[in-house]
Amino acid sequence: MAASSVSLSQAFLSRSTTQQHSDRLVVPGFKLTSLPTTQTRLLRPSLSRAFTPANNRFGSRAATVRSELQTLDNKNDTAFALVDKSVNTIRFLAVDAVEKANSGHPGLPMGFAPVGHVLYDEAMRYNPKNPYWFNRDRFVLSAGHGCMLQYALLHLAGYDSVKEEDLKSFRQWGSKTPGHPENFETPGVEVTTGPLGQGIANAVGLAMAEKHLAARFNKPDNEIVDHYTYVIIGDGCQMEGIANEACSLAGHWGLSKLIAFYDDNHISIDGDTEIAFTENVEKRFEGFGWHVIWVKNGNTGYDDIRAAIKEAKTVKDRPTLIKVTTTIGYGSPNKANTYSVHGSALGAKEVDATRSNLGWPYEPFHVPEDVKKHWSRHVPDGAALEAEWNAKFAEYEKKYKEEATELKSLINGELPAGWEKALPTYTPDSPADATRNLSQQCLNALAKVLPGLLGGSADLASSNMTLLKMFGDFQKHTPEERNVRFGVREHGMGAICNGIALHCPGLIPYCATFFVFTDYMRAAMRISALCEAGVIYVMTHDSIGLGEDGPTHQPIEHLSSFRAMPNILMLRPADGNETAGAYKVAVLNRKRPSVLALSRQKLPNLPGTSIEGVEKGGYIISDNSVANKPDVILVGTGSELEIAAKAGDELRKSGKTVRVVSLVCWELFDEQSDAYKESVFPADVSVRVSIEAGSTFGWARIVGSEGKAIGIDRFGASAPAGKIYKEFGITAEAVIEAAKALC
Amino acid sequence: MAASSVSLSQAFLSRSTTQQHSDRLVVPGFKLTSLPTTQTRLLRPSLSRAFTPANNRFGSRAATVRSELQTLDNKNDTAFALVDKSVNTIRFLAVDAVEKANSGHPGLPMGFAPVGHVLYDEAMRYNPKNPYWFNRDRFVLSAGHGCMLQYALLHLAGYDSVKEEDLKSFRQWGSKTPGHPENFETPGVEVTTGPLGQGIANAVGLAMAEKHLAARFNKPDNEIVDHYTYVIIGDGCQMEGIANEACSLAGHWGLSKLIAFYDDNHISIDGDTEIAFTENVEKRFEGFGWHVIWVKNGNTGYDDIRAAIKEAKTVKDRPTLIKVTTTIGYGSPNKANTYSVHGSALGAKEVDATRSNLGWPYEPFHVPEDVKKHWSRHVPDGAALEAEWNAKFAEYEKKYKEEATELKSLINGELPAGWEKALPTYTPDSPADATRNLSQQCLNALAKVLPGLLGGSADLASSNMTLLKMFGDFQKHTPEERNVRFGVREHGMGAICNGIALHCPGLIPYCATFFVFTDYMRAAMRISALCEAGVIYVMTHDSIGLGEDGPTHQPIEHLSSFRAMPNILMLRPADGNETAGAYKVAVLNRKRPSVLALSRQKLPNLPGTSIEGVEKGGYIISDNSVANKPDVILVGTGSELEIAAKAGDELRKSGKTVRVVSLVCWELFDEQSDAYKESVFPADVSVRVSIEAGSTFGWARIVGSEGKAIGIDRFGASAPAGKIYKEFGITAEAVIEAAKALC
Repeated sequence: MAASSVSLSQAFLSRSTTQQHSDRLVVPGFKLTSLPTTQTRLLRPSLSRAFTPANNRFGSRAATVRSELQTLDNKNDTAFALVDKSVNTIRFLAVDAVEKANSGHPGLPMGFAPVGHVLYDEAMRYNPKNPYWFNRDRFVLSAGHGCMLQYALLHLAGYDSVKEEDLKSFRQWGSKTPGHPENFETPGVEVTTGPLGQGIANAVGLAMAEKHLAARFNKPDNEIVDHYTYVIIGDGCQMEGIANEACSLAGHWGLSKLIAFYDDNHISIDGDTEIAFTENVEKRFEGFGWHVIWVKNGNTGYDDIRAAIKEAKTVKDRPTLIKVTTTIGYGSPNKANTYSVHGSALGAKEVDATRSNLGWPYEPFHVPEDVKKHWSRHVPDGAALEAEWNAKFAEYEKKYKEEATELKSLINGELPAGWEKALPTYTPDSPADATRNLSQQCLNALAKVLPGLLGGSADLASSNMTLLKMFGDFQKHTPEERNVRFGVREHGMGAICNGIALHCPGLIPYCATFFVFTDYMRAAMRISALCEAGVIYVMTHDSIGLGEDGPTHQPIEHLSSFRAMPNILMLRPADGNETAGAYKVAVLNRKRPSVLALSRQKLPNLPGTSIEGVEKGGYIISDNSVANKPDVILVGTGSELEIAAKAGDELRKSGKTVRVVSLVCWELFDEQSDAYKESVFPADVSVRVSIEAGSTFGWARIVGSEGKAIGIDRFGASAPAGKIYKEFGITAEAVIEAAKALC
Repeated sequence: MAASSVSLSQAFLSRSTTQQHSDRLVVPGFKLTSLPTTQTRLLRPSLSRAFTPANNRFGSRAATVRSELQTLDNKNDTAFALVDKSVNTIRFLAVDAVEKANSGHPGLPMGFAPVGHVLYDEAMRYNPKNPYWFNRDRFVLSAGHGCMLQYALLHLAGYDSVKEEDLKSFRQWGSKTPGHPENFETPGVEVTTGPLGQGIANAVGLAMAEKHLAARFNKPDNEIVDHYTYVIIGDGCQMEGIANEACSLAGHWGLSKLIAFYDDNHISIDGDTEIAFTENVEKRFEGFGWHVIWVKNGNTGYDDIRAAIKEAKTVKDRPTLIKVTTTIGYGSPNKANTYSVHGSALGAKEVDATRSNLGWPYEPFHVPEDVKKHWSRHVPDGAALEAEWNAKFAEYEKKYKEEATELKSLINGELPAGWEKALPTYTPDSPADATRNLSQQCLNALAKVLPGLLGGSADLASSNMTLLKMFGDFQKHTPEERNVRFGVREHGMGAICNGIALHCPGLIPYCATFFVFTDYMRAAMRISALCEAGVIYVMTHDSIGLGEDGPTHQPIEHLSSFRAMPNILMLRPADGNETAGAYKVAVLNRKRPSVLALSRQKLPNLPGTSIEGVEKGGYIISDNSVANKPDVILVGTGSELEIAAKAGDELRKSGKTVRVVSLVCWELFDEQSDAYKESVFPADVSVRVSIEAGSTFGWARIVGSEGKAIGIDRFGASAPAGKIYKEFGITAEAVIEAAKALC
């Protein structure tokens, strides 16, 4: 929205009328006293936008000024001034860093600095010198583009990860202050945000993990797990479907220690939110079962922000949304309240004007001594908080030895010795079974030995076979349980699992749906990979083998699409041993997610498969050649390994030497030594046939220019599975024919 | 939820007490008169579930029985009985088809048959013998698994696509009745559903298209565009984020001719919705700005359903949600109201019990004569409706010739002759520019000649460069405009565009976001490809070239992931001519979607690029070899074609013969003749180097076992673009070095 045409003198007039008619014209950011900062010096027309009656969507804002007056009455002027100065420090650290980088998003930090200040300086419990202290409050900036807000706060709070030189290298190669918050780059940042809506869902996961662990470990005399999760969401997050999914679940679960701040600044990249976002957010959140508070003056209403947090903490049965109405780019005389302040540097001239407007005489990146001094207490205070908790834990350990050991392992992420022995093994005589069922056997075996394993399905538990039989449902009143019911919310599920995984290293979340519906949650899965969250994705019904549900439900390109994604393991086990192997790999890989593609249909246990084989990603399951020179190499994955094995048997009968390879995980195979790779795929053997009930895209690298990849490069069909396999030519006959044509 | 433990006699008792205490124990499906059907014969405990006080989440259901009594008072018994019989016909067609296939979802059709009947027999305007009649009401089954409901209705209504033999081949190879509704298989089905939430978003697109066309073409004396869009959504759709996105927009746009039925049956696959879905749906929709109606007895309350539709049609400023409380699997004595009736055949025994329970003496697939006769009017009535509209159109054409010509072209999908001449062309002297800007030039050029082009961005219009300068914003009160503001709702945006594209062949929707955020909308894009919706996806910021925003915003695996997807064109133009070529291809391909990956950064216009080249998918832009035998072939796409060209120039200076190939669209190249392919990539030339700022996955097929693919197989980084290119080795030097190492 363009700045209104109200002139400067009119704005001043509005100021004076405000005192008489407080229910009409109110200027935000306006304070009836002289303070070191100079919000009052220039009252820009643009700042009055939100307060014209036409814009007053949610009722009169008269309370704004009244609460400000109360603020001034109640607070010591000096203290208020120092807070104001701290808030402006945050604003200018953001402005200066963005300006130096000539890239970034100053609008949110400038508008939301007051909330940032109250959170990090007053509300949150953390230890700057140990960002990984277990019982810290978690903070998530879901509106991740505003990351300079968080970097400024981490800097003021004394985190080693964000020194002055880090602020000065914002968005530069190799810096600790990348363009969006990244937990793997910046200690103190909990999760990776930027893609909108992910952060609020991560926060739901963090709060859910806290509720779960508190229920499992807290004792009447010792609440050893006890922290809040704070999250800042913007209009963009609000519009994203994933936020709806996660917030609906947060309400359902009654996550009362989740406190979300909604930056209601009426501006998104395309302009005023009026052009695309006119729903009643409060009503929606009330529908979700949240407690909702509105802070009408987020620009200077520090006491209102404090009061809202206090109120939120009294609510014990539901999460709280604090809607905070702010002015984006607050303080910038010509750009505040416009989309132009969202995602670009202000420019030297406007930076100067903003300094003048807010009365900020300091050099770029300067933190005034009194502000520095004020914040300096967080290092000793944080150390004391952690020491206090450590003492509490020592007490806990004395009285509740077993629980303490388990909790410690969750905090440290150490897997119990010999855990992998719990995995089932199979022989070719074991009954044929679907890998989704074998997966359930593995999950239930692991649940007994892994205290951090918890998860569930997006309303397909009985199809994905993901229920842990020894546990009940994680619900509002049974949060100690480990079967999570995500509802039909794939995207939220993935991002919630990212939050759980990043809560503490010992939690191992898994989640499930049909493999094709990874399309619904791909953005969350990519962030699992990027942010090093070892989520286990249990993806069943992994091909046309699901049959009648048809092409909307049959994955084709999905295996390829994950093989192309960095830092994620795409595993497609063929039988019992390979499923167990896939779980071994998935559990061990705590810093990268694993996707398990599992069959709906029964598969035989094949001779030659093994857990060890899976750990190598690709390996020989049968071979009648000598000297590493088979006539032909047949390669299969998952349900088609059986077909490759059958074809191998037939070809051997006709006198060929045949090697059959299971390529269960391409990423792991790529990591093997050249010698090992050569031992499986000798460069000299160019007669290679692969078979997989999915896209052939990518297989050329395996079978080579002279080989043949059998697959499906079209959409599926609705029919019984066997019929589709036959019609699509995913058969042993096709493999035999291709092999014979090549050699 | 398991069936309650109320015994049969207790259920009968509850029936008698009902008459005295209608505010407590009420049995649904219960009617106080004797009718040909026998809902009253067996009152199963399971059917009373929803009416125990504990389950009565939304208030007393006393109104249920009262409205039923009114129904009986007001209606002629015979008419009611016939409706009831028709409804049971629908139920048993579904039951029998699922039983015969031994696969499918009987629960929804059995529960929602009453709404289905009222819609297709009473409310909707359509012509069974011309499913493509332009002004028909649109119907979308967003809960697509219940497709037997729609097939039964199409069958009764007289559509040729669903004959008795089609019902009998439900879910079989080659049938017209696949496992989920597919518009490309079954005339009468408007869109492709099954993946939950897609259908409601498609319906928003259909209703939006109607509102847009009505605003453009209707005249005070001739409302030539005038139809409703009806949609059925289930609990699963409600939980999906995409439904929230689309419904928020529908409210914002005031799509009053969109009427959504919500099948509130309290059951999802994992059991009672209480386990994961306890939000207040009405409140959420009111927050979205919808009108909300609750039909408390969806099982037999035909008059209530009728009244709700009537009321919805009186609401002229907002869409309507009709929540219809039903019993899933209504009529099945042992499985109704349980998840077991959702997605499996009832089994022979239960089918018999259901026949007995509902008093249905007929053979499988039988349509009683009186029901058949009743429905038979829709063929002549539909023909009359279309004839009437044709007459209206003839009138329209007489008075509004120009508009009629344009509307006709939209209805027929015929592109104006010579439209492609509007596309801009460029020479190497044209100024360097980002392909996102060149894209905007194309879009604006095409807007002048293509009456069906409309679209917009997910709150990134000024970054994606998608605004059509000659038009304003499509909004509630300016629906004739063509710039669509989707807000930050990528998934909803994609599915809404599918709805627009399938409304009539001449509409050409485009939509835009950053390329990396295709992850948010991939499920909708896959359905574009499957359902043959020629949506144009304008995806900018297509690589690390976007710079400072960092790895969350930098696509890596996305090109590969779309190249692996069937029936979608992945285009990555390198400059002005290639961008124009990409648009030519995208507009011509009305039955497959196109994804345009476009740069944020400036690119030079290269010698040798052409629109014609793009149409072939891959072509030579420069070559100094003879006899199709270059020393080396360099291949690039998009922003890296410039790098390949530079490297080619350098290599030529050192005496090599070099061919530089632009592989702008792999799918189109694959469709060329073998001779053409050989003319570009001669089999004999194995020295090939490719360069692309994305995953190398898939490139082995192009460069062969002996070639070298230069790309990025890790996540990106936050830094200025040039720095990242250099650090990641996406440089001409790297290409030269690789080429020299190979030849």
